[in-house]
Amino acid sequence: MTEPSNDLGLLAPIWADTLVAEQTGDAAYLQAMLDAEFALSRALAAAGLAPDWVTAAVDDLAERARPDLPAIVAEARGGGNPVIPLTRYLYAAAEDVRPGLADHIHRGATSQDIMDTATMLVARRAGGAIMAAAHTLATRLAELADRHRATVLAGRTLGQQAAPTSFGFKAAGWLDGVLVAARALDDVLRDLPVQLGGAVGTGAALYDAAERSASAGPDAGAERERPADVVNRVLDAYAAELGLRRPMISWHTQRGVIADLGHALAGLTGSIGKIAADVSVLSRTEIAEVHLELPAGSGGSSAMPHKRNPVPAVLLLAAARQAAAPVATLHASLVAEEERPSGAWHAEWSPLRELLRLAGAATETGADLAGRLRVDADQMRRNLEATGGAIMSERLVGALTAQAGRKRAQQITADVLGADRAPGLRVKLLDHPDVALTDGQIDDLLDPARYLGMADEFIDAVLRDHASRTTSDEDGSS
Amino acid sequence: MTEPSNDLGLLAPIWADTLVAEQTGDAAYLQAMLDAEFALSRALAAAGLAPDWVTAAVDDLAERARPDLPAIVAEARGGGNPVIPLTRYLYAAAEDVRPGLADHIHRGATSQDIMDTATMLVARRAGGAIMAAAHTLATRLAELADRHRATVLAGRTLGQQAAPTSFGFKAAGWLDGVLVAARALDDVLRDLPVQLGGAVGTGAALYDAAERSASAGPDAGAERERPADVVNRVLDAYAAELGLRRPMISWHTQRGVIADLGHALAGLTGSIGKIAADVSVLSRTEIAEVHLELPAGSGGSSAMPHKRNPVPAVLLLAAARQAAAPVATLHASLVAEEERPSGAWHAEWSPLRELLRLAGAATETGADLAGRLRVDADQMRRNLEATGGAIMSERLVGALTAQAGRKRAQQITADVLGADRAPGLRVKLLDHPDVALTDGQIDDLLDPARYLGMADEFIDAVLRDHASRTTSDEDGSS
Amino acid sequence: MTEPSNDLGLLAPIWADTLVAEQTGDAAYLQAMLDAEFALSRALAAAGLAPDWVTAAVDDLAERARPDLPAIVAEARGGGNPVIPLTRYLYAAAEDVRPGLADHIHRGATSQDIMDTATMLVARRAGGAIMAAAHTLATRLAELADRHRATVLAGRTLGQQAAPTSFGFKAAGWLDGVLVAARALDDVLRDLPVQLGGAVGTGAALYDAAERSASAGPDAGAERERPADVVNRVLDAYAAELGLRRPMISWHTQRGVIADLGHALAGLTGSIGKIAADVSVLSRTEIAEVHLELPAGSGGSSAMPHKRNPVPAVLLLAAARQAAAPVATLHASLVAEEERPSGAWHAEWSPLRELLRLAGAATETGADLAGRLRVDADQMRRNLEATGGAIMSERLVGALTAQAGRKRAQQITADVLGADRAPGLRVKLLDHPDVALTDGQIDDLLDPARYLGMADEFIDAVLRDHASRTTSDEDGSS
Amino acid sequence: MTEPSNDLGLLAPIWADTLVAEQTGDAAYLQAMLDAEFALSRALAAAGLAPDWVTAAVDDLAERARPDLPAIVAEARGGGNPVIPLTRYLYAAAEDVRPGLADHIHRGATSQDIMDTATMLVARRAGGAIMAAAHTLATRLAELADRHRATVLAGRTLGQQAAPTSFGFKAAGWLDGVLVAARALDDVLRDLPVQLGGAVGTGAALYDAAERSASAGPDAGAERERPADVVNRVLDAYAAELGLRRPMISWHTQRGVIADLGHALAGLTGSIGKIAADVSVLSRTEIAEVHLELPAGSGGSSAMPHKRNPVPAVLLLAAARQAAAPVATLHASLVAEEERPSGAWHAEWSPLRELLRLAGAATETGADLAGRLRVDADQMRRNLEATGGAIMSERLVGALTAQAGRKRAQQITADVLGADRAPGLRVKLLDHPDVALTDGQIDDLLDPARYLGMADEFIDAVLRDHASRTTSDEDGSS
Repeated sequence: MTEPSNDLGLLAPIWADTLVAEQTGDAAYLQAMLDAEFALSRALAAAGLAPDWVTAAVDDLAERARPDLPAIVAEARGGGNPVIPLTRYLYAAAEDVRPGLADHIHRGATSQDIMDTATMLVARRAGGAIMAAAHTLATRLAELADRHRATVLAGRTLGQQAAPTSFGFKAAGWLDGVLVAARALDDVLRDLPVQLGGAVGTGAALYDAAERSASAGPDAGAERERPADVVNRVLDAYAAELGLRRPMISWHTQRGVIADLGHALAGLTGSIGKIAADVSVLSRTEIAEVHLELPAGSGGSSAMPHKRNPVPAVLLLAAARQAAAPVATLHASLVAEEERPSGAWHAEWSPLRELLRLAGAATETGADLAGRLRVDADQMRRNLEATGGAIMSERLVGALTAQAGRKRAQQITADVLGADRAPGLRVKLLDHPDVALTDGQIDDLLDPARYLGMADEFIDAVLRDHASRTTSDEDGSS
Repeated sequence: MTEPSNDLGLLAPIWADTLVAEQTGDAAYLQAMLDAEFALSRALAAAGLAPDWVTAAVDDLAERARPDLPAIVAEARGGGNPVIPLTRYLYAAAEDVRPGLADHIHRGATSQDIMDTATMLVARRAGGAIMAAAHTLATRLAELADRHRATVLAGRTLGQQAAPTSFGFKAAGWLDGVLVAARALDDVLRDLPVQLGGAVGTGAALYDAAERSASAGPDAGAERERPADVVNRVLDAYAAELGLRRPMISWHTQRGVIADLGHALAGLTGSIGKIAADVSVLSRTEIAEVHLELPAGSGGSSAMPHKRNPVPAVLLLAAARQAAAPVATLHASLVAEEERPSGAWHAEWSPLRELLRLAGAATETGADLAGRLRVDADQMRRNLEATGGAIMSERLVGALTAQAGRKRAQQITADVLGADRAPGLRVKLLDHPDVALTDGQIDDLLDPARYLGMADEFIDAVLRDHASRTTSDEDGSS
Repeated sequence: MTEPSNDLGLLAPIWADTLVAEQTGDAAYLQAMLDAEFALSRALAAAGLAPDWVTAAVDDLAERARPDLPAIVAEARGGGNPVIPLTRYLYAAAEDVRPGLADHIHRGATSQDIMDTATMLVARRAGGAIMAAAHTLATRLAELADRHRATVLAGRTLGQQAAPTSFGFKAAGWLDGVLVAARALDDVLRDLPVQLGGAVGTGAALYDAAERSASAGPDAGAERERPADVVNRVLDAYAAELGLRRPMISWHTQRGVIADLGHALAGLTGSIGKIAADVSVLSRTEIAEVHLELPAGSGGSSAMPHKRNPVPAVLLLAAARQAAAPVATLHASLVAEEERPSGAWHAEWSPLRELLRLAGAATETGADLAGRLRVDADQMRRNLEATGGAIMSERLVGALTAQAGRKRAQQITADVLGADRAPGLRVKLLDHPDVALTDGQIDDLLDPARYLGMADEFIDAVLRDHASRTTSDEDGSS
Repeated sequence: MTEPSNDLGLLAPIWADTLVAEQTGDAAYLQAMLDAEFALSRALAAAGLAPDWVTAAVDDLAERARPDLPAIVAEARGGGNPVIPLTRYLYAAAEDVRPGLADHIHRGATSQDIMDTATMLVARRAGGAIMAAAHTLATRLAELADRHRATVLAGRTLGQQAAPTSFGFKAAGWLDGVLVAARALDDVLRDLPVQLGGAVGTGAALYDAAERSASAGPDAGAERERPADVVNRVLDAYAAELGLRRPMISWHTQRGVIADLGHALAGLTGSIGKIAADVSVLSRTEIAEVHLELPAGSGGSSAMPHKRNPVPAVLLLAAARQAAAPVATLHASLVAEEERPSGAWHAEWSPLRELLRLAGAATETGADLAGRLRVDADQMRRNLEATGGAIMSERLVGALTAQAGRKRAQQITADVLGADRAPGLRVKLLDHPDVALTDGQIDDLLDPARYLGMADEFIDAVLRDHASRTTSDEDGSS
């Protein structure tokens, strides 16, 4: 069974062999389930709902536990989730560690408590790598933005040269997109909750145990602790043990956190896909304004030895394309009926993992791409001449409007552009009877470098934003 | 042309005839485009880039402007967006108001500036109605949560009775879901940005005008104002005029805000779809624990006079189902190449409007549903008896484990449940040789009302959360 | 209510003002519902389940019926679908035509019967326009394929020049894609079924009526007709009246036909989106191998007078982007529980209409684009020289392999391409010690026009396929 | 690297451990790539473009080739697809088998030729298992449909009891849905094409080789074979060798076949999801009309020993929910620019595999579910009494209309149903002054078994359809 269903990433060069692939593999999920189970047992002991010896015994169990992944996978079909066979395994393994330990395993929990908590753990762990790569990417984009303030190139809209811009401004836009998306993800990651509500979310089994424990206490005459206080201690300890948030109420069928996480992952992936789209265009043979300096052996073709494909950009575009649809599946799962839905919950697992992988791949590959991006300022300048000055038409209209009013300005511009958009704009301007511009004024008007507007201001704003965040990150505990 | 392509909502009973339908119609979008154009002209005047008289003239224009919606629609195909014909109209209308006014219309803007800003305006306006309805819904859910703390019913997982819960706890879960989603939407709505970057996002046309204006100034000898400062004033005034945020940098092709907005709208719709799913189940003929008290004429069938369909729940489920996919389209549009993409931007408009409509419909219909929900506590109690006590099996195992250890407890429970899950659990427990429980203890153990665990604690937490937010809302400026 | 929720297509320049917009408007849907109701009444009369006079009376009713669309829309919320208020209207209108006629309206039907049948009618009617436009598009693509067999241009993979191809071959690929998709849609359109199963799909009401009618017949002693035979006659007549297929069994909750229709529409839209993507690339300023000859006033920009945007291509790309997600909603609705689902059915209506509109817009706009496409063969030739001959590297390897084996050929090619991909490939080949090629042989090897392989064969195959289908269409009755 | 990124299906109990999981694993894909490469070499030899000895040498190579899957996976990132490192491996392995053999490996092919062809092979192989399981499922559904013609139960619409139906009719609906979807898939599977177009789809490398071969031939004086004829022989042999269709033209960027395949897989998955939805409802605790007889250890809960969850139904619902979104990704990839797109192609691989897995899981699990379905006819009868006869209201209206006209019938029915829908319908009918029905007539009118209409007719039609297809399958060659 196990061998053939192996998915090592043959069909996913985007995430195969990345750090996040490791952190989201079946083994990582299984470990997270174990971590959740052990944290629960420890929390029970910490709160007084299990004997003190349980803490050490669970440490022992954690040391020794070696569940058979393929067997767990195969048995998961019986109950519809892997936690059921895993607890079966743990009950037996616990008894091997110390008789009676099994009584304090999975106590008060339902499968979904463990599965959801494990998912949050995996997300937080993979999220750490994702955020680190996003940080590297942002730093490289900031460098590009700052370095290329004066690197002028054609801004393009609907595929057509529109007006000049600077490469630094482009990079600042990329940086802004990544920063916003990365912060949104960070906010979600810092707020991931544990799950521990038991069968129907009310925590009844724990409460019952706490009540029994209180009434069985030695000094039954003394003021008894409220069972709810005991359960609150369990919930707090469980969350603290795992470094996750304790939620206000069970969220077995309030799945906003999953959809939010998926959206944030896809959003970050998409923001990097935007960069890849631009790199892909700018590295076209006929445009050739940037290229990726790839390691030997990369970017090649199986048939065409001359090809130097911008492979990281291609993979990033593929990642962004794949990230959109799983979000829809997660959104559909918001409609989770009753206390555990028939299918909506189960349908979340694979899409969410896919999104973790895609975001991990996108940040790691994106950071790599940003580091390998080479800019050809001369070619940018050459391409700016492709329209014979017409790319400056907006500026021309502006200048002429100031002189002659909007309508006349439009007319003159139409005259000098000509029906065929032939070169010679400069000459036609000089010759036009209604244009009162000197030679030098025309040169200035048609100079792309003189028409970057607020580009530097906007770059500064984004760089300041990046810097402030970076600093606060270093101060903070994240 | 116009009549037949009319969409009045015949295929969308969920949003037809709702408040948001009005706020997101073509007329509302067209008005928002006009508002954006007028705000720009006013901002130019305020910043000194247009003469003072422009302010009053634009007020006049705003009063008089009556663009022909069907004509705008028809002409939009030529340039690919409705702003192009709209500005054509405005140039002419402005000249009618005062010669020269056209020079100060759409100055420095590109079509996308107006379209994006108008979209933000429509979102904020419709968002107000959505938040208000969400507020009403939340208040009604809070009432249900508080009132039904002691209304015990079967919690159900995978469609099977699982363990008892309270209707108040269910409602608290609904409330939590709605609160979280509504706040997320509110956060997005309060942060919607204007767009004003010109042709390629650099604000070059405005900057150029500011530069010209400075050099043309009377006291050219005095210290000249930096053109960037002038443009900053325009941008600030534009945002202030419209009550939107001024962004750090143009976001023509950084579309996170659109995806975030779409996600938040779909998230809120989904959180209400969850309520509808539960209502739909609980109002099934054989369960009949709740029903919706609909106005006369609602809920009927064209063929079966006895039917009382929970129509609002059905419509809400339809809304939630429709809300998932458009988010994917918005995510795909994050990959927006260059300074204006070929299709990705245009593909956002309809899906985002659909999401506004669905969220508006969901909150309005959801609030209505919550107000019409009637709970049959007796029927809940009857249904709790359907399993002959087996619904208490988790509690039983807990109690027996405390007495005899986990393994023995499981065995005893299996014995008394029996292979056929026949009734008589109580008798079998009394008779079982290994069970040392008194009659009264067994009665207590099998009493659903005694097994609600932390339900009240969790209800309190959510109600406190709701109350705190409501108070801060009233204090706040939102 | 009605005015503001108006959707005339302001946000959808792709379909606004197209033929299909008219055929899928609310008015068209309402008419189709009426057609379905009238067809049912006529079928009842034809089958003997209603008196003969009903046929003429229904004709009369059809003539006079003027349901108030906005009122129907508003009332649809009560029952969750527009058929309920429509039948209410019809009952009253029928009695005005002739007392007793109402007894023969909507007889045996449930709302879904009318709604589903109307949807099929709308699809078939809009489908006719879609297929006609697809036909025009295909014809124009066939002309391009044939005319441009010798128009050589760079084939591009991953954005890089890869190897030569011909524009005719490109167009043949487009044609093949459109033909396959259009035929798939045609197959679905020819097979659209009526719906008429009554409350739960069993046709019980009609059967009951037939049974009653038989037992009430005058010659009760004679051999009675089986009620099922009578119902079969109704079903056959209903389908025949509407020109749709009679299904094997009610499909109220077997929604494959809806998903198939949606998929076929999106598939056709996507196949045209592919053409638009290519046109968009080839019309880039720096590539400029094609352009669209647009009517005056089209393709302009609100800010940049020099722009000539390939607007139809942009709109087609937007359409293709929007067509993907609604298919997912339709797929999700396949899971339609019981005899009428709570939301899955209702969630189909808008997405399916959107797909009809997008496919209609795509075919109409695609045909227009194909007619306006202008090819610049000289520019193609110039661009082929951009790589200094490297675009012929695959051919070079092939030729050298035949001489020296694969490994040596790879080495020599690497040598002559050089690390910097500088021009001078021709010279380097002549100079290379291991290359035994004459001047003429090298010229031939590096001639793009000599490396089109099977292009003409493949073009011929596709053109034959197109021709054969066109002929059979003209013979056929479709 | 390799271990941790292992995906054995821990998060996918629906497909883990199924037959299709094996057939779609990385190993299976790698094998299919090898099969495609070897078929190409054999086809070259068969067509005379490679020496005769190549055939045997390739057999030898096929025997010996053991590419290192993890290494291929890791290296795939460099070029963006796994074929590039695989061919590198094969070139070396071929030389080990026989010097010069490498010259005849991957000849004339591009990576996409191998990848696409391998995908088609995997689809056909997995498709065989899917169709076989669908066949088993259909046979079981046919048995249920036939056996349960007289098993009457409540038909339910919008969750409410609506009118009686038979379980056989329900099963016939399921069967119809599965048959239609399975045939659509079968049609696609029988028509899967090979891919072999070379760098830009023109087959230029093969053509060139054929041309060289012809001119190099011994009897250069004799009438030379057209190179195109040679290439046609290669293409035919390649397709024949692999048992796939030879396409009319390369489909590197005409991806309809992928979208069609994905749609068909999702359609079949959805049609089985519909069955699962019904089973899920009918097995609800309070309805309990069916249950699944699961093997010991299945259907249990980790917390509630009394639970008997309909796990296969839950997994099928999860599968159907997951199948919708990947179709959207495939649709988006129809827009594949130029001769190989930057990302659209790469984004197809994982979603298509996911759909193969889901469809395989759905058919296998669906067949299992159908075999384990147990029907409780008594409980169905009991539930039919839940509405005190109101479920027969449609029939009542029909009968009364025949007597007293539609309007009066509606009024009487409203009278006897009463506002509160209390029982006693029978008595109220007898007592109603305007109702002229005998005791026996009322008994008959209110008998659910007498109101099944055309159910048996429709069952027969579907069973005939099933039988005809089964027979033709056995005759056929599929």
